[in-house]
Formats: sequence, structure tokens, C-alpha cells
Amino acid sequence: MSARIWSRNINDERVDRIMIKVAVLGATGYAGIELVRLLSRHPEVSLELLGSKSFAGEKISDVYQNFRTILDKECEEADVEAAAKCDVAFTALPHGASKTVIPALLDAGLKVIDLSGDYRYDDVKVYEEWYNEPHSSPELLKESVYGLCELHREKIRGARLIGNPGCYTTCSILGATPLLAKGIADDKNIIIDAKSGVTGAGRSLALQTHFCECTENSKAYKVATHRHTSEIEQELSNVAGKPIMLSFTPHLIPQKRGILATIYMNLAKDITADELQKVYEDYYKDEYFVRVMPKGKLPETKHVAGSNFVDIGIVKDERLNRVVVVSALDNIVKGAAGQAVQNMNLMFGLDEKTGLDFAGFYL
Amino acid sequence: MSARIWSRNINDERVDRIMIKVAVLGATGYAGIELVRLLSRHPEVSLELLGSKSFAGEKISDVYQNFRTILDKECEEADVEAAAKCDVAFTALPHGASKTVIPALLDAGLKVIDLSGDYRYDDVKVYEEWYNEPHSSPELLKESVYGLCELHREKIRGARLIGNPGCYTTCSILGATPLLAKGIADDKNIIIDAKSGVTGAGRSLALQTHFCECTENSKAYKVATHRHTSEIEQELSNVAGKPIMLSFTPHLIPQKRGILATIYMNLAKDITADELQKVYEDYYKDEYFVRVMPKGKLPETKHVAGSNFVDIGIVKDERLNRVVVVSALDNIVKGAAGQAVQNMNLMFGLDEKTGLDFAGFYL
Amino acid sequence: MSARIWSRNINDERVDRIMIKVAVLGATGYAGIELVRLLSRHPEVSLELLGSKSFAGEKISDVYQNFRTILDKECEEADVEAAAKCDVAFTALPHGASKTVIPALLDAGLKVIDLSGDYRYDDVKVYEEWYNEPHSSPELLKESVYGLCELHREKIRGARLIGNPGCYTTCSILGATPLLAKGIADDKNIIIDAKSGVTGAGRSLALQTHFCECTENSKAYKVATHRHTSEIEQELSNVAGKPIMLSFTPHLIPQKRGILATIYMNLAKDITADELQKVYEDYYKDEYFVRVMPKGKLPETKHVAGSNFVDIGIVKDERLNRVVVVSALDNIVKGAAGQAVQNMNLMFGLDEKTGLDFAGFYL
Amino acid sequence: MSARIWSRNINDERVDRIMIKVAVLGATGYAGIELVRLLSRHPEVSLELLGSKSFAGEKISDVYQNFRTILDKECEEADVEAAAKCDVAFTALPHGASKTVIPALLDAGLKVIDLSGDYRYDDVKVYEEWYNEPHSSPELLKESVYGLCELHREKIRGARLIGNPGCYTTCSILGATPLLAKGIADDKNIIIDAKSGVTGAGRSLALQTHFCECTENSKAYKVATHRHTSEIEQELSNVAGKPIMLSFTPHLIPQKRGILATIYMNLAKDITADELQKVYEDYYKDEYFVRVMPKGKLPETKHVAGSNFVDIGIVKDERLNRVVVVSALDNIVKGAAGQAVQNMNLMFGLDEKTGLDFAGFYL
Repeated sequence: MSARIWSRNINDERVDRIMIKVAVLGATGYAGIELVRLLSRHPEVSLELLGSKSFAGEKISDVYQNFRTILDKECEEADVEAAAKCDVAFTALPHGASKTVIPALLDAGLKVIDLSGDYRYDDVKVYEEWYNEPHSSPELLKESVYGLCELHREKIRGARLIGNPGCYTTCSILGATPLLAKGIADDKNIIIDAKSGVTGAGRSLALQTHFCECTENSKAYKVATHRHTSEIEQELSNVAGKPIMLSFTPHLIPQKRGILATIYMNLAKDITADELQKVYEDYYKDEYFVRVMPKGKLPETKHVAGSNFVDIGIVKDERLNRVVVVSALDNIVKGAAGQAVQNMNLMFGLDEKTGLDFAGFYL
Repeated sequence: MSARIWSRNINDERVDRIMIKVAVLGATGYAGIELVRLLSRHPEVSLELLGSKSFAGEKISDVYQNFRTILDKECEEADVEAAAKCDVAFTALPHGASKTVIPALLDAGLKVIDLSGDYRYDDVKVYEEWYNEPHSSPELLKESVYGLCELHREKIRGARLIGNPGCYTTCSILGATPLLAKGIADDKNIIIDAKSGVTGAGRSLALQTHFCECTENSKAYKVATHRHTSEIEQELSNVAGKPIMLSFTPHLIPQKRGILATIYMNLAKDITADELQKVYEDYYKDEYFVRVMPKGKLPETKHVAGSNFVDIGIVKDERLNRVVVVSALDNIVKGAAGQAVQNMNLMFGLDEKTGLDFAGFYL
Repeated sequence: MSARIWSRNINDERVDRIMIKVAVLGATGYAGIELVRLLSRHPEVSLELLGSKSFAGEKISDVYQNFRTILDKECEEADVEAAAKCDVAFTALPHGASKTVIPALLDAGLKVIDLSGDYRYDDVKVYEEWYNEPHSSPELLKESVYGLCELHREKIRGARLIGNPGCYTTCSILGATPLLAKGIADDKNIIIDAKSGVTGAGRSLALQTHFCECTENSKAYKVATHRHTSEIEQELSNVAGKPIMLSFTPHLIPQKRGILATIYMNLAKDITADELQKVYEDYYKDEYFVRVMPKGKLPETKHVAGSNFVDIGIVKDERLNRVVVVSALDNIVKGAAGQAVQNMNLMFGLDEKTGLDFAGFYL
Repeated sequence: MSARIWSRNINDERVDRIMIKVAVLGATGYAGIELVRLLSRHPEVSLELLGSKSFAGEKISDVYQNFRTILDKECEEADVEAAAKCDVAFTALPHGASKTVIPALLDAGLKVIDLSGDYRYDDVKVYEEWYNEPHSSPELLKESVYGLCELHREKIRGARLIGNPGCYTTCSILGATPLLAKGIADDKNIIIDAKSGVTGAGRSLALQTHFCECTENSKAYKVATHRHTSEIEQELSNVAGKPIMLSFTPHLIPQKRGILATIYMNLAKDITADELQKVYEDYYKDEYFVRVMPKGKLPETKHVAGSNFVDIGIVKDERLNRVVVVSALDNIVKGAAGQAVQNMNLMFGLDEKTGLDFAGFYL
């Protein structure tokens, strides 16, 4: 891995160390700017390139003025040549754009963590069915790793190209995995009802994200057709060892950050509520970013907002022999930028928590 | 029915007419004040008594200052004697209080529309199981009518005592009814995932309704144990002609008004999406307050906020042979006060729409 | 005035009456749709034409789905010929568009209530200075009346063309008028600090009204240069009988409806707090839509949201011999659509309150 | 200063260092928990004691579940004995409570940073006039230092007791100081119109902070009588070198974090807009946490939310020879907890920015 010597002051001591040189392509969208926010505090990272087509030539701190004096770096046209000096590129580009850029970045020797849907699939047919278009670089799908760290940690460590999971996806998969992995839940009649904050819709202008159309409003959308369904099914099928098809319904609710997924699964075995609780606690006992709620408590999005944690609560419906799992995360952290940094940490041999081990802001 | 002559100006013409004399007991809670708002514009109603234990002696327009100059009436201790002059009482009292007051009101010759859970049950055992206490007047349960107008219109017309449905309940039942009535949906694996605005939690102070705890936050609560489950099951069992048990999960989301219920049902028959759509359109074709969305469109809470409408959208999941129904209403209008007025209209022989035939406020 | 016979059922009695035929041009903006909402419940109005360039051919109830079943009328290209059958047109058109349409509407015999800034000025020079462009029909300025009903009621009754006041303007002028009319406030050092909800920014898409940019955010804008300053100065100069120049600062705050104006004026006379209170109470004693708060209470936007009321509270700062007046209204009702209807009522000889005498929604 | 050796891993290197042992008394209020959030990431701090009367015996991570796994420390009765082992105590106690605890903490050898109003005054009479009660330890007022770092840095370095400024106060004082210090603004007719988010009202339950009463609502309160007025006047009088009296009006707006202060001052001198801009840029050129906006740009609360920055924008009103200054900060960071940490850094000889040099969260 190429890298450069970079020095900075840590508490008045000058420390020379090798920093990871990072490019963020698409730095001015909501996932992009959250990457910038996290990476600007990451102790092992040097932010070398902020790519933005719309704001090339402007300072990032003029586009997002919270960064004034913290990071006054100029945005650049995100060309591959400029990125070539970096060790890793995060690509948070509009759908389609990433497909042309990423092969070139890989050729230039970078590792790539892509936040689009393009490299998340094992099977190109699934991609083409749900995205309704041919894939431009199907050969890379064979190499790319689905960047859900809790499921694919070892593969991620050695990967060159990561398909960083969708925001709904992480929340849903981590909530359902233990019961499917252990064969405790029935593989039929799985329902995932997910509620997302508005940052999930991005910064582009649209009537549905106008404040007056959006505040005091809730709705379901893309019922039975949302693309993330296919990611969830792919991963849960792998976990269960058999094909899983399920209902996934996304909703837009009037808050900025947060996804709450309510997951319904029928129980395939006799199991008590205490045993169910223990299944989750055991399954995630070594996972820093997964916090299983104590029995009787449920997650709330404010507990995870601004952090890389996923909180999961489990309720057994004794009347119906069904389990209801509720999982919560911050869609632009664990659901996008935070998970991407977690992937980077793994890929560069760092402690997975580096730069991510802090509480959310609650308020 | 006793009534008094009351005159008012309708467009410069003096009109003498018999008005319905109304008492609202519990006028200063959120359901109560919405009743006052609706009744103050109802052309056939004279608001005679505003009962409020907490605010007795204060003007309603000091408690809710939007009413200044519109209704400066004083709140009174809600005693039965004071209410005796009225034709009908709406009781929006804290759980428990209504049970002692209502028999006395009935004895005094009033009709009663009760917004608590006390008179919603066919079977006292169901009440006692879900409320975990003995019912104080089980004999009245035989007489009381479940006030969901679209299902029990004829009985409501002749009733003396109405158990006005819960807020989640109306939304859920009306969404699921057509498919169960027609035997199209399987009676197993019904999941209702409902999201409610914060007015549903009432005006009492609690940490969970503090602005800073509540805005930018979403959560599930009382999973598998919410009392409204029992109402929904009672009514849908009647509709289906066989016992229905289902999962109902309430959520609190950061908006004031609105319930959105997402209902999952497996299809028991071969039926196309177009046919499903038609089932709903036919079923509700004479129901003014139920608006079936055109195929491909889904309801949003802002479309119903402030109105007595329920909007229902239907999606067939072709992959899973499942239907996803989304229904939306305003929890304090069609989910409480508006429905109560609709019940009153039926009980007093008025056009069901009287005082309720307006659009919500959207903005 | 041309009019047509129109009949409808008022409480089961068929009433034949002459209805005012109304066109709303620009019906799908936020002021336009609030006009439609108010007019659809106005007992003397027949909504004949909903003009919308963007949505011509679509039903208003598809553009704003709260209107489904209430008003399923189609929007039309807002041409003058189509409007010619009407008695009055409300023009809520983008800046510029109203100037070409309005002379033609007047020629066709309609009365016009214009919600733009074009016909609000006594002096064309003031317009041209603040709008930085020549006025296209300065001759109409001589005829047009500034539609602030509380100040110009008599002129409005006889007017053909109304310049309906700006949203900030009504709030500010009504708050400051009594003290300036009575010579109690100094004409120097008047500061108006106003906070507006986001509907004031309209429905057009812009980054600043994106939910995620707008919620949890407040800002001042157009400091010292906002056009409404010139309206406020014009009217308060007339009230005071001498030229008034003042500071006006608009702010955007994260709510949909509501303007709160905090007005600072130095006292030019010795006057007690009780006397100040009485000045306001006396000044507005016959004004239905102005509610002076009791001494010691202050207005809040939720008290007026959805209504045509302006609430005004008065505090004397004893230390500084200064008065702080706080006034609140709903920017799209009394600040736009409601005031426009109030103007129409006056112009057509109706009771000024017709269709407007209801409480706001509070919740 | 007593201290202990504490070791931790900084980027895989074990570092032994002397950490500052900190007690937070009142850790579970909103200012307290923000202190905990900031201190838990502060590289030189060891959080030794979390004092909370209401939650003694509970884990901080059960009270604020965002801290789960990050800080699972138990809250304790905040007694002085327990705190005695610490180097410094932050007291964020209810009004009154701090007065009895603080002298004891000082006697025990701790430095104290008090977030109440008790130790903010030079003159005990001012305190007693605005708080309307006798001061319990007036002798400490002589020693205590007003903890506005930008104004009193040198005194703070040597202080034992800090009166940490009020939230409105910092925003107002820093906005007005340069012009008063330079004699450019008139000392009469200063108006400060401030808007605050709801965290400023604290976590205690009250109707006005109920979500449904608070969202979609704005209001002024304590007009001409808010206690922070006296702090602002004290500090600006010192800055100006002559007594300053001014209007200060607080408002509550529907967002969690943020204060926006709009400050109106008449100009006492001929000065151009460019020169005004330069006065601010020069005055704050060495202040890391004060960001003067470029000419023509204005601050917004989202630019500072979650950070310790104050953003200040300056507009000259050419018509009125008046300046309008807009300043923004996060009321629980620079307006409370962040400033308290900044004070601690100064008192312990650390770089003032330590643990505070990050961007806010914007989203």
C-alpha cells in the first residue's frame, strides 16, 4: 500500500505517522459530507481530495458552513488522475456515475469503497432485474465484497472493491440475521417494515423533500418494489442457507436522521423469550457496533443518531408464536458513511472502531 | 329527545331551529379540544357544557387560546347534574373516570359517546384480559355499540351508548376489512404496523413527549401487547366470520397528527392487482369518509390531517402473493373526535357528514 | 355586478341565492391553495376557475390530495377569457405575471384581489426603488387600494383592484399602528424583528426549503433590504402622519405556518403599562380579527395558525421607557389568503367575517 | 493541582499521562449530558463522578441510551465527599442547589465551573435585583470569574471558581462587543432579539415543552425581564467603559439546539460597511471559536449545532445608519457545556481548543 508520512500534533506532541490518503468522490451529498465529517476526525486519515461535480472550485466550508476553519479545502472535479495519489477512494456518486469511475480508480491502484448499489450483488442478474438496466462491469462483481462488516469481515480485509450496503439494508439484515442463521425463524412470512429519515432521500431538490411537504407527514413508498429488498434477500439467503423472499416496505418520516426497522418473523421452533434474547446477545457478543437492548427495552433512533451503532430489541409475541425485532441505526452513519469508514479500517488493518468509537448526539 | 329552540344567523337570515345540546366531558385534553373545535362549527349543535376537572372555572379560550373570541365559554366541573340538560355527552375522560360517570349520564336520559376503551367490547372477558382489571358496568357492554360508523351504522342510529373506537383501530380495521369480508385474505399472518403522531399520547406531561426527546426520534412501543390489538381482532373477527389473531405494532413518530397503518395480508385466492383495487372501490363506494386511492397511489398523513377522511391504498406484491394495504387518518379526527361527531350525526338522524365535510389543512 | 343564481342545500333546506363567482389564478401555490381551502367553505362563493400554469389539465385534488372528494375540479390555463365569467379574480401569480394579466381582468369587468407586491404602493417610485424595475401599469396604482382591511376598510368596499398586503406586513403594521396613530411612540428607532414559517417561501424548490436544510435551523435573511420594509413604512407613515423609516429583519424558522413580529418602539410620552394596554384595546375594540392579549400574556403562533386572527401583546419596558409589542398571525391566512377573502367580503357587501369566523387548529 | 496517572491507547501506542479528574454534578440534565458527551471524548480528562440526584444508582447509559457501551458509568448522589478526589467539578445543578455545594467543593480543593447564574456577577446587588433573593455566598462573587473566555481569558487561567455564562448571553455579548469596545456603536437603543431552541428550557417536564405544544409554534417570553439581560449589560458595560442598558427579548422556536441573536445598534460614527466588517475580523482574528462570516453572508444555527463555534455576520443598514449583527451558537455547547470545557482547558493550562476542535453536525 502506498502511503505518505504525515505529521500532526496530538496533544502538543508532534507525531509522525503514515496516514491513509483518502479521496471522497461526491463529497457534497449527504452521505459524502458525513464521510468528510467522520474522516476529518479520523486519526489515521489524510483527506486528500474532495470531489464534487457541482461545487468544483468552491471550498467545502462554503458548501457546508459547519466546516469553516475546520476544513477549508477546495472541492475538485473528481477526476481519476487527481485521485491517483490516494490510497483509497470513497465513491458517493449518483447512480450510474460510479460505474465508469470505479474501474479506472482500481486500475490506478486505489482501493474503492462504493456507496452506490452497483457492486453489492453476487449475481449480476439480480442487479439487472432490480435496477432494470445492464451492468457495465459485471466482471468486477465477482471481486467486489458486500461491505457489511459484521457478516463479511474477513473478505473485507482483503478486498480491493467494496459495495457498501444500502441504508435500509444494514438495519434489516442485522436485525434478522441471528434467527435465520440459527434456523429459529421460519423462512416464510418475513415482513420488514422500515421507517427512514429524510437525509435518506439525498440533497437533490424534490417536492417530497420540501419542508412544508415533509414535516408533519408520513408515507410509504415503493411498496413491494424497493431495490434494497434484493440486497436484504441476497444476504439473508446466504445467512439462512436457503432462498429467502420477504416483504420490505420503506416509509418516509419527518426527521433528518435515522432508520427504524420493525421485523416480523414466525418462529420455527419452540423457544422462550429469554432464549430468544440470549440468541441475539450471543450472536453479537463480539460486535462492537451492534448493541442488543436488554430484554424489555426497545431501540429509538435518537439513541443511535450521529453514531455508528445499530441497536436491536427483541420481543416474543407469545400469542402468535412470532418474534418482532426492532432495529435502529443512523442511515447516514452505520447506514452509509460510518459503515464505509468501518470498511476502510478493516481494509487497512486498523482497529475496526478507529474514528468511530463515540456516542451519538441524542439531542 | 329533548332539545331547545336556538336561533342563529345563517347568511343574514334568522333561522330558528332545534339544536342538539351537547356536553363535552374532558374538554381540555387533545381529543376533547378537537371535539370542541369540530362542534363549535357544527350547524346543528349547541355546546352547552365544557367539563374539565383541571380547568374548571377557567375559560376554554384561556386554556386553548386559539378559541379567543370564538368560544369564551367557561369550563365546569363535569358533574352529571350540570350535564343533565343536554341531549348527548361526549366523554373524553381519563381511563377509569368514564366508568362511574357514564351510567349516571344514561340514567339522566342522555345519549353518551365515550372515547375511552370501556364500552368497545362485545365480551367483557376480552376487556378484562387486555385492561387487566374488572369492568365496573358489564351490563352496559351488552347495550353499547362499537362506534365505527362504516361497520355498524344501523346499530349506531339506535344506540344510547357508543364505545367510540381507538385511534389506531379505525385505521387498521378499515384498511383490512374488505379483504377479510370477502374471504380474499388469509386469516393467518396478518401484520399491522402502525405509526402515530404525538397527539395520540395526550396532553399529560411525560418525558417521552418532551419536544427534545420526541422530535428527530422514532420508536416502537408496547409491541405485541397494545390494547388496541383486542379491538382490531374483535372487529375483524366479526367481519371475517371467524376468529382473527394478528400482530399489531404501534410506533411513535415526530409529528402531531396522523396515523399511518401498513397492513400485510397473504392472499387466500388468485386475484389480480386490478381486481384487488376494485374490491376496495366497490366495498367503500358509498362511504363518504373512506377514500380509496387510485391504483398506484398511496396515502400520506398530510392528505387527511385535520379531516375526517381515511385514505386507503392497495398494493399487490406479485412476488409473494401478498397484499400491502396502507391506510391513513388523523388520529384526533377520524381516530377520535371526528368519528365521535359522525356517530352523533347518526344517532340524531342527521346527514352523517354534517359538520365534517371539509378538506384537511395539508399545510 | 354580474352574478348567477346558484343553489345548494343548507341543512336540508334548498336555498337559492346569488353566489359570487370566483377565479383563483395561481391556485396551486401555497397562498393559492389556502385560498381554495377557505373559498371552498365560504357560503357565498362559487369557485368557477382554478388557474394553474404548471398543473393545467390536472385535478386540484390530484395536486393537493387533501381535496379528494371535496373539490375534484380541474385546473385550467389561467387565461383571461376563461376568467371573464367570474365576478372576482384572486391573483396569486409569480412576480411579474400578475402585471400583464390584471389589466385585462379589470377590462373584462372583474374585481381583482392581487396577492403580489405590484399594486400595494401609493407611489410608483417606491415600488421601482425596492423592486428595482419599472412598473408596467403605474396608472393602476392610483386606483388600487392597499388591502389591509383594518386600515382601509371604506376604500376597499368601493375598490376594483386590491393590492393584498404582504405576509410580514400585516403582522408588523397592525402591531405598531395604535402607538403611532396616537403619537405615543417615537418615530425613530423602530425595530421590527420578524420570524416566519416556511410556507412563506412558497412551494418552489430551493435548497433552503429542503427539509434537511430547514428543520432544526434558523436564520435571518435580506437584512435591511427586504421589500416588505417599504410597505410597512408606507402604511405606518400614513398612520403617523409623518415619514417613518424603520429596521425590518425577516427570519426563517422551522415551522410551516406563522409569523411572529417583535416590535420595539421608544415611548414619546409618559404612559403607564395599563394605559398602553388600554390604547390597544380601544384601538381595536371593533376589529373582529385583531385580538389584543390580556395584559401579561403574549401571543404564540399556534394560537392563530389556520385562522384569520392577529394576536397582539404589549409589554412596557419600565427600565428603558420602551414598548415591546409582539404580534402573531398565520402568514398564509391573515397574511395572504384569509385577508384576501376578507377583502372580497368587503368588496361584495358581505359581513367581513363571512367564511372566516373560526378558530385555528392549534394542534 | 492534584492529578493521577492514567493511561490509554492513542493509536496503538500506550501513553501514560496525567489526566484531569472531573466530576459533573447534575450530569443528567441537558447541559450536564452534553458535558458528559464532550468530556468523554476529551483526551486529557478522566470522568470520575457523574452526579445526579434523580438517577443516582442508575447507569448514565440507561438514562441516555446513546452512551451504551461508550460510558456505562453509574450516576451517584452528588455529594462533596465523593467529588473530593477530583480536580475540577462542573456544577449543572438546579438554581439554588449550586450555592450550597460550591463552597464545599472549593474547600475540598477543587476548581469549580458553575453553569448556574449564581457566580456570574461582579456586583451582588445586580444578582439580588434580577434573581429577587439574597445571595448565599456573596464573598465568593469577589473571587469568581465570568467565564466568557474571549473576554476574560487571563483571569480564567488563574481562577478557582468560574461563573459559566448563560446561553443567550455568550451569543449576545460576542455579537455586540467589537462595536462597543471601539466606540463605534451608540450606547443607547441597543436591541437584542434572541431565538432559542428548546433544549434551553431543560429536561424538566412542562406544558410549554410538550412536543405538541412546541412544534409548529414560536413565542416571545419574559419580555424586558429575562435574567440574562443583567449579564449582558454587565459585560457590555465593562466592554464599553460606561453603563449600558438594553432591550433583550428571548423567544422559543421549534428546534432542539441553537440560539440566533439579532442585534440592532445605531452607529455613533461614520463608518462604511467594509470598515465594519474589518472591525469584526480584526477583533476576533485570534479567536478560534468566533467565526466572522464573510461580508454578505449570515450565520445559521445549523452551521454551529453540535460545535463550540459562534458565527457572527454584520450588515450595515445604509438607510438608517444602523448596524444589524446576527450571531449564532449552539446553546448547549458554546452556550453551556462547550464553553465550560473551554474554561477548564484554560484553567488547567491546556490548549483552549482541546477536545473542542471539531465541526458541528449540520444534519
